[in-house]
Amino acid sequence: MDAVSFTPIGTIRTPHKRASDTPVQPAYAEGIEGRVELLPEYVQGLNDLFAFSHIYLIYHLHKAGPPSLEVIPFMQDHLRGIFATRSPRRPNPIGVSLVKLVGVKGNVLHVEDVDILDGTPLLDIKPYISRFDSREEVRSGWQDDVDEEAARKQGVRGYRAEPAEDET
Amino acid sequence: MDAVSFTPIGTIRTPHKRASDTPVQPAYAEGIEGRVELLPEYVQGLNDLFAFSHIYLIYHLHKAGPPSLEVIPFMQDHLRGIFATRSPRRPNPIGVSLVKLVGVKGNVLHVEDVDILDGTPLLDIKPYISRFDSREEVRSGWQDDVDEEAARKQGVRGYRAEPAEDET
Repeated sequence: MDAVSFTPIGTIRTPHKRASDTPVQPAYAEGIEGRVELLPEYVQGLNDLFAFSHIYLIYHLHKAGPPSLEVIPFMQDHLRGIFATRSPRRPNPIGVSLVKLVGVKGNVLHVEDVDILDGTPLLDIKPYISRFDSREEVRSGWQDDVDEEAARKQGVRGYRAEPAEDET
Repeated sequence: MDAVSFTPIGTIRTPHKRASDTPVQPAYAEGIEGRVELLPEYVQGLNDLFAFSHIYLIYHLHKAGPPSLEVIPFMQDHLRGIFATRSPRRPNPIGVSLVKLVGVKGNVLHVEDVDILDGTPLLDIKPYISRFDSREEVRSGWQDDVDEEAARKQGVRGYRAEPAEDET
């Protein structure tokens, strides 16, 4: 099938400077602030976005390792099909993160709960609309067996490995 | 910024043959069945996916009209910033749909609630994990003002404009 080409529309800025230190999910990056710098030519597209509390960022996982059809996810010690995981080592390294939108100033979005590597190329922004994007009666496969406390410890990764100064 | 190139990993098959007849959201496509035909070389990546009840399909909106930074969404008669809508006319036409996973057979996924045009190139599949992907205390901007009944009527579009035989 023909390749599809996309051009980044901005850059995601976060405190996560190394892939290995980046939390694996927004849920494990609570309160961590980031900035989305949209290229100025797209600023008109942000109209009305400020009134949404949560948005999806869709981005290029530009530092993902080589693709692999099976991976051992962070939260469990079993080999799993790549499409049953959120691992970045996907055939097409496209990331989707649901983050809190704190504010919009010009072409910059202030966001929270970012589990994204600094410098990540942004491809799209979509609003989170609860009546479309939330489901009840969900089965989440192997994720339902994950020990949440252990997962959280592993999932935050480098970010809280060393206590921040205000935590000591 | 440098363009990013992705190669489709499969094709989404649905009863929606024309963009103008395609429901605008999975919520308005309840029970509509579709098929995801993954290229055989990726089949190993589907391991463990059967145990998830819902998945995200990420795809190329290959029939989207020309990009526009402001659009009038289907559900409301106001011009809105493109990033505050789910309109396909985005700078990068990437679609994300949350669908029900009914079954996996070889390289084919059987799904329900598809709001996707037939023949759409698939880019990625991700599992829906409720503790990561569902948020409480959400504000959904202009979408919170939409009259749900009117939106549903418009949102299903062609699909139920004519009653199906079993409805007459």
